[in-house]
Amino acid sequence: MTDSKDPREAKLPEKSNFSEWYHELLKSAEIIDVRYPVKGMCVWYPFGFALRRSVYNIIKELLDVDHYETQFPLLIPEQEFMKEAEHIKGFEDEVYWVTHGGTSPLDVKLALRPTSETAIYPMFKLWIRSHADLPLRVYQIINTFRYETKHTRPLIRLREITSFKEAHTAHATWDEAAAQVEVAVERYAEFYRRLAIPFLTCKRPSWDKFPGADYSIALDVIMPDGRTLQVGTAHLLGTNFAKTYGITYEDAEGEQRLVNQSCYGISERCIAALISVHGDDRGLILPWEVAPIQVVIVPIVFGDKAPIIEACRALERELSAAGIRVKVDEGDERPGAKFYRWEMRGVPIRLELGPRDMAKGQVVIVRRDGAKRAVPRDGIVEAVIEEGHALQEVLAKKARASMEEHIRLVQTVEEAIEQVKTGVARIRWCGSVDCGHQLEDLVGANMLGEPREEPLLPGPCPICNASTTGSTYMARQY
Amino acid sequence: MTDSKDPREAKLPEKSNFSEWYHELLKSAEIIDVRYPVKGMCVWYPFGFALRRSVYNIIKELLDVDHYETQFPLLIPEQEFMKEAEHIKGFEDEVYWVTHGGTSPLDVKLALRPTSETAIYPMFKLWIRSHADLPLRVYQIINTFRYETKHTRPLIRLREITSFKEAHTAHATWDEAAAQVEVAVERYAEFYRRLAIPFLTCKRPSWDKFPGADYSIALDVIMPDGRTLQVGTAHLLGTNFAKTYGITYEDAEGEQRLVNQSCYGISERCIAALISVHGDDRGLILPWEVAPIQVVIVPIVFGDKAPIIEACRALERELSAAGIRVKVDEGDERPGAKFYRWEMRGVPIRLELGPRDMAKGQVVIVRRDGAKRAVPRDGIVEAVIEEGHALQEVLAKKARASMEEHIRLVQTVEEAIEQVKTGVARIRWCGSVDCGHQLEDLVGANMLGEPREEPLLPGPCPICNASTTGSTYMARQY
Repeated sequence: MTDSKDPREAKLPEKSNFSEWYHELLKSAEIIDVRYPVKGMCVWYPFGFALRRSVYNIIKELLDVDHYETQFPLLIPEQEFMKEAEHIKGFEDEVYWVTHGGTSPLDVKLALRPTSETAIYPMFKLWIRSHADLPLRVYQIINTFRYETKHTRPLIRLREITSFKEAHTAHATWDEAAAQVEVAVERYAEFYRRLAIPFLTCKRPSWDKFPGADYSIALDVIMPDGRTLQVGTAHLLGTNFAKTYGITYEDAEGEQRLVNQSCYGISERCIAALISVHGDDRGLILPWEVAPIQVVIVPIVFGDKAPIIEACRALERELSAAGIRVKVDEGDERPGAKFYRWEMRGVPIRLELGPRDMAKGQVVIVRRDGAKRAVPRDGIVEAVIEEGHALQEVLAKKARASMEEHIRLVQTVEEAIEQVKTGVARIRWCGSVDCGHQLEDLVGANMLGEPREEPLLPGPCPICNASTTGSTYMARQY
Repeated sequence: MTDSKDPREAKLPEKSNFSEWYHELLKSAEIIDVRYPVKGMCVWYPFGFALRRSVYNIIKELLDVDHYETQFPLLIPEQEFMKEAEHIKGFEDEVYWVTHGGTSPLDVKLALRPTSETAIYPMFKLWIRSHADLPLRVYQIINTFRYETKHTRPLIRLREITSFKEAHTAHATWDEAAAQVEVAVERYAEFYRRLAIPFLTCKRPSWDKFPGADYSIALDVIMPDGRTLQVGTAHLLGTNFAKTYGITYEDAEGEQRLVNQSCYGISERCIAALISVHGDDRGLILPWEVAPIQVVIVPIVFGDKAPIIEACRALERELSAAGIRVKVDEGDERPGAKFYRWEMRGVPIRLELGPRDMAKGQVVIVRRDGAKRAVPRDGIVEAVIEEGHALQEVLAKKARASMEEHIRLVQTVEEAIEQVKTGVARIRWCGSVDCGHQLEDLVGANMLGEPREEPLLPGPCPICNASTTGSTYMARQY
């Protein structure tokens, strides 16, 4: 469904106009189609799904090392769902309910999972019998549902989250579960490093932790407009759910003990971050590893077309044999229209090959960030891979610089108010809940939580004036 | 959650007692856990999910050649769902309805997809504009829901089908759509060949086609008890849905024309067939290509344990480096208990290595079907792969013979009644709907449809006595 569209029809707004740019890009690059007739439920275009697939392959690879992939049912009976009081308080306003099967009312209402603790933990109770069954680490990649009353946004705030990767673990002790939370954060960090996306890691303030958790760690990405996007969370559940669902194990001494749990999740927001952090006025820029098409070859035809096309196909065969995802664009359009289309889709490397290049035994290699050079036709595979990796470096460096530009250490509420208009403020905070709530109210932004980097020198909490080395990030959040 | 269980606790009934064998095996081999607290909704155990993953990788590989993977929403607004009259008639009694979001009733009821025509085709209308957009071939692997009132069975008749692979295509002409149906049947045939599962291919009688289709082709597997399991279907939709959803394209002459469509699906029933066709009294037997663990190495320890374990680990490293999914079972149990567990899970090849083998420079290789020989330690990789492929041949041949034993050409209704007690009857049928219905009523079994093999010599239709070369398969169906 792409070929019949003139790519020049699409007018991508400048990225400085972030919200419009984002929505138009999802359409022009064929990531997500928002025209499905239910608000907040979207369709993955084939190209978008191919991107999702390669991004999620990284998640799977990182988890498969020591997690099992599984799948649990979507529908949760009301009585199971309602068991954990704090948890349900956090979700009850946004749960979809199935009430009818065919034309008959159901005896028991069924919730569409907003997250799967209440579906999984009754099974953990059955699966775990002894210490030898621990640790247990499972994950699933599934759809979840939230009846959002806020404004929805494709990939960011959805009523159907199509790509929720949730992991759930059980351990003998609280310390082991807490250590697993750190492992999860490190896996997610590795995942975002492979996408060249920098992020903040914070322990969320107590009033913003996951319902039912002892504490929550979150990863946030700073979007181009300075607002933050929570792109991953890891929760220490302790024994809270184990108590509710009766998940116990027999320890080495024959005692029955409650398991300690953690859970952690990532959704298609990782794709939203990928698109938003790296893209430019011309469209997507995709890191080499995840680009559905890594290299596009554009024949530059003067005079006799056949030998050029043949040379391009030979090039394609050679790159493809080396495991590179490559495509020759043999269409009849002028090269400029082709450049436009593949730039929109973020293809990392474009190769141009015309009669003059053939005569010189060279290929012109254009990286998606604009770098351009002619390279010898021999050794093209190595040159392409080298440029693919070089692009990764460029993207990571640029994204890191942009993130740092968006963070400022501020001393006063007034400075914080100003800073959160375009970025993230780091501000001293004594750690008290009262001062935290006041800070959020006065600044008009959310606390992301305590940075995990080096603490500050002592200074006054801007609310209570108590001297503190503590601080918090504050931002407007998506 | 496996290690703490004594595998000897499980008592697998003999396979001749098929239904009990099947249910116990799903549990003992840890494929599916049926204890989830909603009838007809099951949990994939980690081992079961690993098997599903490798089986579905084959489907993806076969479709990725010329289909795009996509994903469409689960929830379908009532008015879209109700548009195609014949289609909805086929599904309305078994649709789950979401009626509430949080505590509020929804303005528009949302159906949980029983299949996705009504979710996908409104988007096809938007995606398809000209003949250059055709053919369009997409697929998705998703969960679907049917409020089954019949007895449910894990992997076979479910209320949540977790693993529905549905493909949807659009073409310029009816002939091209019909040709796509043949392509689909051929892909499915290839899929089942790779699983060493023989099947029947029939055009379903008109009263059993997919609601909204011109006709339906189905693949059926004969289960050990002689009942058939429909394991794949391909439907020619013609312009039926295109009319309802207004899916048109501009042809080369600038005329607007309706597209012609096909759709085809496979579900986790393919796993049910895989388990049932190949398994034996000791458990699963998995074909080499899809076994989550292809080779288990069991150390046979006499005297000093360390050198044996080290030799087993070296063997594991060598096989693993060759891309084989291999595991050493270093547990403290006696070898017999290990054999039992890995046979239950269908591991194709067991290697046994003890001091006597080491002294002789050999490894004992035991195929899951019982074939056993000692092979030189050098060249073990080739020997293992050879035996893996040999097992595939054995399974295919055995399954083929069993299928043929279960089919009999019969001349009379009485013979058919007898035959469908333990297998599939092939019986003459003039092709008229009336005779078809009478046959089904008299025989007390379903018509699968006309075999695609060579027609019969002329003979009388057992109902109307008209001479015919036509025939049909009849069977009790799952």
